[in-house]
Amino acid sequence: MTHTHAASAAPPPPPPGTVPDEVRAAGRLARPVAPATSRRGAGLGEARIDGGFWANLLEVNAHATLRHCRDWMERLGWIANFDHVAAGTTADAERPGWQFSDSEVYKLLEALAWEHGRTGDARADAMFEALAARVVAAQDDDGYLNTCYGHAGQPARYTDLSAGHELYCTGHLLQAAVARIRTTTAAAEPAVADPLVTAAIRAADHVCREFRPGAREQVCGHPEIEVGLAELGRALGEPRYTAQAALFVERRGRGTLAPIALLGPQYFQDDVPVRDADVWRGHAVRALYLAAAAVDVAVDTDDAGLLAAVERQWTRSVERRTHLTGGMGSRHQDEGFGDDWELPADRAYCETCAGIASVMVSWRLLLATDDVRYADLIERTLYNVVATSPRADGRAFFYANPLQQRTPGGDLLPDEVNPRAEGGVRAPWFDVSCCPTNVARTLASLPAYTATVDGDVVTLAQYAPGHLRIALDGGSTLGLRVTTRYPADGHVHVEVTAAPARPVTLRLRVPHWAGGASCTAPRAAGAGHGDPQPVQPGWAEVRRGFAVGDAVTLDLPSAPRLTWPDPRVDALRGTVAVERGPLVLCLESHDLPDGADLADARLDPSAPPAAHDDGATARVHLAPPPRPPEGRPPFTTEPGGTGPAGAATDVVLIPYHRWAERGPAAMRVFVPTR
Amino acid sequence: MTHTHAASAAPPPPPPGTVPDEVRAAGRLARPVAPATSRRGAGLGEARIDGGFWANLLEVNAHATLRHCRDWMERLGWIANFDHVAAGTTADAERPGWQFSDSEVYKLLEALAWEHGRTGDARADAMFEALAARVVAAQDDDGYLNTCYGHAGQPARYTDLSAGHELYCTGHLLQAAVARIRTTTAAAEPAVADPLVTAAIRAADHVCREFRPGAREQVCGHPEIEVGLAELGRALGEPRYTAQAALFVERRGRGTLAPIALLGPQYFQDDVPVRDADVWRGHAVRALYLAAAAVDVAVDTDDAGLLAAVERQWTRSVERRTHLTGGMGSRHQDEGFGDDWELPADRAYCETCAGIASVMVSWRLLLATDDVRYADLIERTLYNVVATSPRADGRAFFYANPLQQRTPGGDLLPDEVNPRAEGGVRAPWFDVSCCPTNVARTLASLPAYTATVDGDVVTLAQYAPGHLRIALDGGSTLGLRVTTRYPADGHVHVEVTAAPARPVTLRLRVPHWAGGASCTAPRAAGAGHGDPQPVQPGWAEVRRGFAVGDAVTLDLPSAPRLTWPDPRVDALRGTVAVERGPLVLCLESHDLPDGADLADARLDPSAPPAAHDDGATARVHLAPPPRPPEGRPPFTTEPGGTGPAGAATDVVLIPYHRWAERGPAAMRVFVPTR
Repeated sequence: MTHTHAASAAPPPPPPGTVPDEVRAAGRLARPVAPATSRRGAGLGEARIDGGFWANLLEVNAHATLRHCRDWMERLGWIANFDHVAAGTTADAERPGWQFSDSEVYKLLEALAWEHGRTGDARADAMFEALAARVVAAQDDDGYLNTCYGHAGQPARYTDLSAGHELYCTGHLLQAAVARIRTTTAAAEPAVADPLVTAAIRAADHVCREFRPGAREQVCGHPEIEVGLAELGRALGEPRYTAQAALFVERRGRGTLAPIALLGPQYFQDDVPVRDADVWRGHAVRALYLAAAAVDVAVDTDDAGLLAAVERQWTRSVERRTHLTGGMGSRHQDEGFGDDWELPADRAYCETCAGIASVMVSWRLLLATDDVRYADLIERTLYNVVATSPRADGRAFFYANPLQQRTPGGDLLPDEVNPRAEGGVRAPWFDVSCCPTNVARTLASLPAYTATVDGDVVTLAQYAPGHLRIALDGGSTLGLRVTTRYPADGHVHVEVTAAPARPVTLRLRVPHWAGGASCTAPRAAGAGHGDPQPVQPGWAEVRRGFAVGDAVTLDLPSAPRLTWPDPRVDALRGTVAVERGPLVLCLESHDLPDGADLADARLDPSAPPAAHDDGATARVHLAPPPRPPEGRPPFTTEPGGTGPAGAATDVVLIPYHRWAERGPAAMRVFVPTR
Repeated sequence: MTHTHAASAAPPPPPPGTVPDEVRAAGRLARPVAPATSRRGAGLGEARIDGGFWANLLEVNAHATLRHCRDWMERLGWIANFDHVAAGTTADAERPGWQFSDSEVYKLLEALAWEHGRTGDARADAMFEALAARVVAAQDDDGYLNTCYGHAGQPARYTDLSAGHELYCTGHLLQAAVARIRTTTAAAEPAVADPLVTAAIRAADHVCREFRPGAREQVCGHPEIEVGLAELGRALGEPRYTAQAALFVERRGRGTLAPIALLGPQYFQDDVPVRDADVWRGHAVRALYLAAAAVDVAVDTDDAGLLAAVERQWTRSVERRTHLTGGMGSRHQDEGFGDDWELPADRAYCETCAGIASVMVSWRLLLATDDVRYADLIERTLYNVVATSPRADGRAFFYANPLQQRTPGGDLLPDEVNPRAEGGVRAPWFDVSCCPTNVARTLASLPAYTATVDGDVVTLAQYAPGHLRIALDGGSTLGLRVTTRYPADGHVHVEVTAAPARPVTLRLRVPHWAGGASCTAPRAAGAGHGDPQPVQPGWAEVRRGFAVGDAVTLDLPSAPRLTWPDPRVDALRGTVAVERGPLVLCLESHDLPDGADLADARLDPSAPPAAHDDGATARVHLAPPPRPPEGRPPFTTEPGGTGPAGAATDVVLIPYHRWAERGPAAMRVFVPTR
């Protein structure tokens, strides 16, 4: 295992801001994923988003969601569960929360660490330290750390690997420790410097002992320990953790997990070994966390076969089992993938956490392969799944993200735990509340997903207004000021604010939907803007010496476009969607004329949709409602939909991620055509 | 409460057969439902099916399924659970089966009682008596009878009304007792004559004590006790049972049940009081058993408002939430109804038990209202849900009945309990195995659903070859020999084999799909056949004096017909189905040319399907598969399905109820059109 980032370069000069020097020093390392390749993601100290779409979400996350999650877990006793273990009072009362509630505390810790690393926010750091102290106090002498098992009045450790989630929780603890290591000076001497990091190392060592070959040769019903061990191994240069992650990946798919009632072994991917599988199946978050870990293991152990297996699975799953939003999971029953082409709009599950997990997989594959399609899917998923989940105020969330809601939701209580993962209304908290903290940790680390660096090749994978100061090998810095209203329009202006004397390569992603894009670049360092050149979807590359003030611009088409489902997608036959840039749009009942029923709306594809704010205006016919079937199931001897076309009207389609923000609404992404 | 059948008429002369006289004497009473109206169903002693479609299913049920169910429950220890309670050894080992496994034993008892009543089969009677003896031995002194609660090592009685199913099990015990009462001489003195009946009465009295006003004012999470109490009340003329059933119906919908994780109160219809609800929602079997009970209570207490509520719910649910097969339930997650128009073919749940429960509701509504639409839905459901479940040999069953299977199933083990309620392969037994015994009791009593009697009006509601000998008021008999190949063709010949001197009314159902039907009837008693007269869908009525040898014939159209989904059914847009008579047809991959993919099949609706055996031949184009989306979700900027039409070929569509009988197959009922 080699680490290309071991030799730290001189830090770039500090930009204006509140980031303390010691955090800034670690800024290049402050990223969730650091595989053993020459290609790396930007560190939080290198990539700043300071305006526009994502800055707003990051701000709300920082100032509302983090505390919201902490307060809910305090209110429900999920944090106090650690106190009970520390005090030895677990036998005294019923433990609140599911068996995996510890993981929510760990994901919040991870989010707080990234937030502190991203902005230097002292409140986030203080909240981290206070929470971490309570967590650490609950660790057993041998490194085991879990509030649901192994103490007085609780089931014994590792007695329910199928459903117990113990290793799953530990995996999230390790990811939180990785974030802490990479955002503090603890990076230099982590085991000594930070209580949570110390606890994570002890927990990881405990797992390696308990689950070593010849001991418990088993796996956890929910993958996650694998990515945790792999990344902690990278962060600490500890090959034992990587090796244990590899063992867990290899052990799965061999039927060792006891079945859970009514669910087969594919639910937790225990049906087929990872390297033999052709497609993702079963519980989507489980499948995707496992795939992310398989990439980690493949890269760090130089296992081309395993990497190819995940690429193969990604390809078929994306081509046949992925919704237009990038959402994954078509079935509520097992929160899982369906068959190929099973992509119902109304019952699309598209769990927020599955979207996040999909980003985790694609990001690792992008770093491993440089294939632009992974960056394309990340963008689709970020704008249309991850950004859809939190309410504008950051205090309520979608868990499921269906593409159609027939009747307006609205029966959720504003201040109650929501037992349902659906309903068309964002809820403040869930009985199973994995999504809010997952959104929080993803947004807090989001700038790290915007650019990759490979030697002197710097690639902008995602577009947001901000400032990149990329530390290049050899100590020089490439500074790039990005100015754009993207995704509201398609113009991206990249100005060089610092550059080495030697030539470097700047690459800009041209999304797959961006036919007709163009790029300008200076003909030479300091030679002005240059003329627009057409660029094809993929990486648009400019290699040359740059001077401060040089600008590269990218113009992506921003007109709304019609998007049609593959004819094999049964659930969407006869419909069309409208997209604009990276945004999937939707028709919400709020935007229909008074009294009109969304079920009667028929989009006229012969009238091209026009731009409207960051949405579109489309011609919609409101067909008169058909006769009811009169005491029969809704099937007739005459073809449906052949009645009069109905009144035509121009209606606004809004970005999908904003739906249900104006109150309960019926909604659909795919609208039947005339 | 009044009983119109209290004054027993002289029995009709015994036809050829093996039915003992004492069973025959009770034949008019041998029916599952006997509401307090002048309209009644035929008794098993009055209606014999002796050939054709249903006779075959009844025969297989009698000779294979009954013993199959007994053997599986013996093998799994579900019957031995009663022995353990009787022996006081419940604390010794873990109890096998779900908390509702007792109900499977009771449904088998009910099936055995009907089977004995239908045919006089002594083996069925012996099996009943042997099973009943073991059940009865487990009854507690105060009448409580349940093998999962209330004994050493078990949770206390009624501590989990939401999920415990105790009253649900008791309800099935009462239904078994009703079947026993109505098929034996025990009808005259039931409490004395039969151990199971005695036990049921004690159990019913226990329930009435425990759940009386002022005591436990609660309901069971799964409705069923209500229909059991109502019918036992009718069978015994005991108004206390009816009153308790009415209490349970009224108590539901008021939020008294503790929620089950992730499921809201609508799961068990505890969200809205029955008389206030407009539509069925939540778990389909629960919703329908409750609706059946509400009809029972409404009729017996003369509650027009309650009856109107169920009719209202039926109407909207059938018009908007019912699949073409009559199947109900669109969601796997809660085995429940979806929204209006949510009728996916692939994920249609259409639980076999929900089909049976739908027949229970519609049969009660038919008896209450005489509205032909209820008989129409019964026919649709019997042919396309109930008949679909059992394999040809009666030893494997579908639990879910989807209308589309994309990839052939086949991973079920032939001799194992199947944990899944899906998969495209009939399974011998299920972890939750409600369907096999439900099919068994329904088929064993099926002849009782073929005709209704109201004064001197005899109505043939369903068509099967056989002999009806209906006991009319005043002691006379109307004998009718039915000869038909229905549903293989549409000709039904009804010959009078016995008739009173006075005029009577014979009514034949003309199904709603039977436009162009015609009927012949003698112009007067003994005056021959008469000329064909057109008849409209509904009841075709002939009122006059009949002579032995007179014949009434009905000719229903039997050409295959195209059936189109309502345009509001999103999941089926752009598709068409083929029906023939009461049969829904389907396209199975077995019938495609070698190498063709069902996903590429496009039905050409401009070429009318032709008759083929009891299926159809339709023109199908096999479109070349579209290009894969190449690393993107399956959505493109060009409308799908506009490629070349593909090779045209004539393929056979078979009756849906026979699908997957030739081995694992892909299947679809609704086929995309060209």
